[in-house]
Formats: sequence, structure tokens, C-alpha cells
Amino acid sequence: MIVKHLTRRQILGPIGIAAGSCVLSSCLSESASSPLDKKPGFPWPYDKLDPQITAERAYNDHRKGHCMYGAFVSVISQLAERYGEPYSSFPVGMMRYGAGGAAGSGSLCGALNGSAALIGLFVKKEEDMKLLIDELFLWYEQTELPTYIPERPALDAKIPTSVSNSILCHISVTKWCKMSGNKTFSKQQKERCARLSADTAAKTVELLNAHFAGEFSAAHEFDDEVKTCRSCHTKGSDRSDSRGKMHCRICHSSLAVDHP
Amino acid sequence: MIVKHLTRRQILGPIGIAAGSCVLSSCLSESASSPLDKKPGFPWPYDKLDPQITAERAYNDHRKGHCMYGAFVSVISQLAERYGEPYSSFPVGMMRYGAGGAAGSGSLCGALNGSAALIGLFVKKEEDMKLLIDELFLWYEQTELPTYIPERPALDAKIPTSVSNSILCHISVTKWCKMSGNKTFSKQQKERCARLSADTAAKTVELLNAHFAGEFSAAHEFDDEVKTCRSCHTKGSDRSDSRGKMHCRICHSSLAVDHP
Repeated sequence: MIVKHLTRRQILGPIGIAAGSCVLSSCLSESASSPLDKKPGFPWPYDKLDPQITAERAYNDHRKGHCMYGAFVSVISQLAERYGEPYSSFPVGMMRYGAGGAAGSGSLCGALNGSAALIGLFVKKEEDMKLLIDELFLWYEQTELPTYIPERPALDAKIPTSVSNSILCHISVTKWCKMSGNKTFSKQQKERCARLSADTAAKTVELLNAHFAGEFSAAHEFDDEVKTCRSCHTKGSDRSDSRGKMHCRICHSSLAVDHP
Repeated sequence: MIVKHLTRRQILGPIGIAAGSCVLSSCLSESASSPLDKKPGFPWPYDKLDPQITAERAYNDHRKGHCMYGAFVSVISQLAERYGEPYSSFPVGMMRYGAGGAAGSGSLCGALNGSAALIGLFVKKEEDMKLLIDELFLWYEQTELPTYIPERPALDAKIPTSVSNSILCHISVTKWCKMSGNKTFSKQQKERCARLSADTAAKTVELLNAHFAGEFSAAHEFDDEVKTCRSCHTKGSDRSDSRGKMHCRICHSSLAVDHP
């Protein structure tokens, strides 16, 4: 463990090497030629965090900047308090854009977008980064959420759980509202999304902790239906005419009628 | 215009005020209480950029880190070369996560994710940020793309255009492949996405230039079909049971059979 309040140069100077990905205690930076390549180190070092503390922060930060902001800040703020720079200078306010699947568009769930950004920030090797994000996304698609119970809830009520079968905000939120009988944009939906952001941030920290401890292995996989679709349509298959890893029949629901 | 190579503290010290959003020549920073609130300024200042130069950069940067990275770096790198910090310290490598709709998941197009992140970084007032992202997303959904012709193409071929009707990578890519007769993950598809990233980054700079010149007005709106759907399903409507702004019938294609 390093001491607190090191400067950016002290943390990320020409001390170490960047090979794949690193934790604060073991490795550091790199250097190259253009202004952006001369930046003080990428990936940024990660240090083990507590999932429960991270969840509480994400829940509370959700109120300040919504889902992507909450998930992202829950992690960066802990590292900023522990080490100062460069974490304390990250312009976290930018992450407000991810709310409601990016400016309310309903695409990628903001909690997932912010969590994937964290994984991208800490894990340099693309293959590892993808494995962690794949696991996070499959967990989100297949798990009854939210499960997090806040210490000081904004809305002190029992929040029903649902399985989204989708990483898209539009589907995740709409399914939950339909199942629970709540309207979109209601205080119940906002509370559900705040707790979901807490769950997602905690899961992200679990995955990062495992990765940097050399203990990560995927616990989720595509379900059988998706595997069947992918056997014909994805990269290297017969048709190779589709791109993506999202659950198929959540949108392609009418395929059974005339599909092989 | 400020001189080059100012330090982060010089640019973002206690000189100015942050009211809504700002350009380098007119306003600067703010201060507050927690470690992250003490960060050296948010939003980051924007300065007018050339769309064509931005497009060329996004196209070339696409090769280094894919779509989200290409779109984001095309802008940050120009400001880093012009002003140094804080732009030159942004850990741009994190943006690789957005490739293929986030780790290949096929959700939000990475070029849009990176461009929305830029808008989030420069535009503080949430209402303005959303208006700019809405316009970018509608432009992307409704426009024949790609139109950008690279100076030094990686693949020197005529690239067909298509209208995606969607901000999702899965649909945008799959529709283009189907229309053009190319396979996903082919060199043609990669070239199409590199040029699309260039178009998207150029459009983002056009929007930011207009916003900071006080000249922005939306040129795109929901099509009539989407307006009809939203009249019953979105916030404040009779049912208020859906969230999102994406084109509806691109997924809800079988609604005509039994829908009012």
C-alpha cells in the first residue's frame, strides 16, 4: 500500500512499466511521443475496494448525477480520497451524460456504461477488459435486481426485483415498471435505478478485485437460445451477418413463426 | 486566445467562474469541498475546432482504439496540442471500452458514446447537454452514412451508405451489412465504421461550435411514427410506461397486427 496524497508525478512518473494492467502497489506508467501519449500513465492503477462501501457510494452519488455518474464516482472517489491525483482531477461531471441510457435515449444502461468505463480505465489488455465487461453485462441481464438495501434510503420502501434480459435502459426500466406496476419517471423507478446502480458498482469492484488478484473466472454465459442464434449469425459463423452479444429474442420476439 | 502550454493550475486555477458551460477564451473554473469537488474545474473549456480536421483525426484514431476512442481522441488531442493540460492528461485509453457498442455488446454505437462523453465534458447545463446529444443521436438515426472520404483510406473503396434508424451498434452495423452485402467483422465493415466515426466526430464539433457561439438550434426531430408512440407511452402521457427516445418500430416491428 502506498502512502496517501502522492502527487500525480509521484504516482505516475517514470518509475514503472505498464504491462497489461496494474495495481497501485505493483506497477505504473509508460511514455511515448505525441502529447496524448505523453500523458502521465495509462491504465490508471487500481487498488482493492470494498463492494459494500462502493454500493453505498454509488447509491448516494446517483442522486447527484444519475446512474453512470453514480457508478463511476463510487470508485474514483474512494481512490481519490486514498491517493489524491490523478483520481481527484478526473472530470467526473462528464459522466452525467450516461443517464437514462445516454441523455435519456434508453440505450446502454448508465450504470453499466460507467462501470465499463472504469474497467476500461484500469484494465489495459483488451482481451481482459472484454472478459470483465462481458461478465458484468451477462450478470446484469440474468440477475434479479436490485438487491441492494440502502442504509439511508431516499425512498424507504420495498423495491421489487426483475430480470432485465437486456443491458438496454429502455428494456430494463420498462420491464421493471410493467412487472412492478410503477410508472416510468416515478419516485419508485428512480429508487430502483439508484439501487441497481449500487448493485452494478459493487459487482464491478468484485470483478476488478478478482482480476487484479489473478482470481477472475466468468460465472455467467450466454443462455442456450442466444447460443443457438450465434451459431449461425455471429463472427466466423455461416452467415456472419450480425454484430453484438445482447439477448436476441428480447427484440426478435416474432422469429419463432418463420425462422429455422 | 490563451498561449500554449499553460499548466493545469494556470488554466484551471481560481481565476474564473463556471456558469453553465464555457470556452477557453471566456471562462474557467470553480471550487468546492470534497476531493472530487476540488478537482481543477468542470466543465472543461472548449475551443472552436474544424470539423474536417476532426473527421480526419477520428478516422485515423479509429485504427488505434476503435470507434469510441477515435471520436473522443479526435477532439481531445487537438485541444491537448493547442493548450496542453488538462487535455493532455485525460486517460484516453479508457475509451477503448466503447468499441462495438461497448466491448462488442452491440448497444450504443461507440462513436456516439464517445461524442456524447465529449458533450458531457464541455457542457455543464444538463438541459443544453441533452439538447445537443438528442440532436446528434437523431442526426445519426436519420442520415445516410458514412459520407466522409478519407485523405489516406485504409481501404480504398467506395463505401455504400445506409440510414440506421437506430443508435445501437447491433442494428446500425447489421443493417449496413445486409444492405451492402458485406459480412460483419469484414474489412469493409471496419472501413464503414471508421468513416462513420469520422462523420460523427465532425458533427459533434459542428454542434459544439454552434452551441458555444450561441447559434445552436435543433435541425432534427422524432419522425411522425415515433411521435405517435410517444403520445401514449412516454413521461407525462396516459400510460407513461416506457423510457427512451430511440426509434420504436425498428424493434417493435410487429405492433401493427394488434396495436391500436
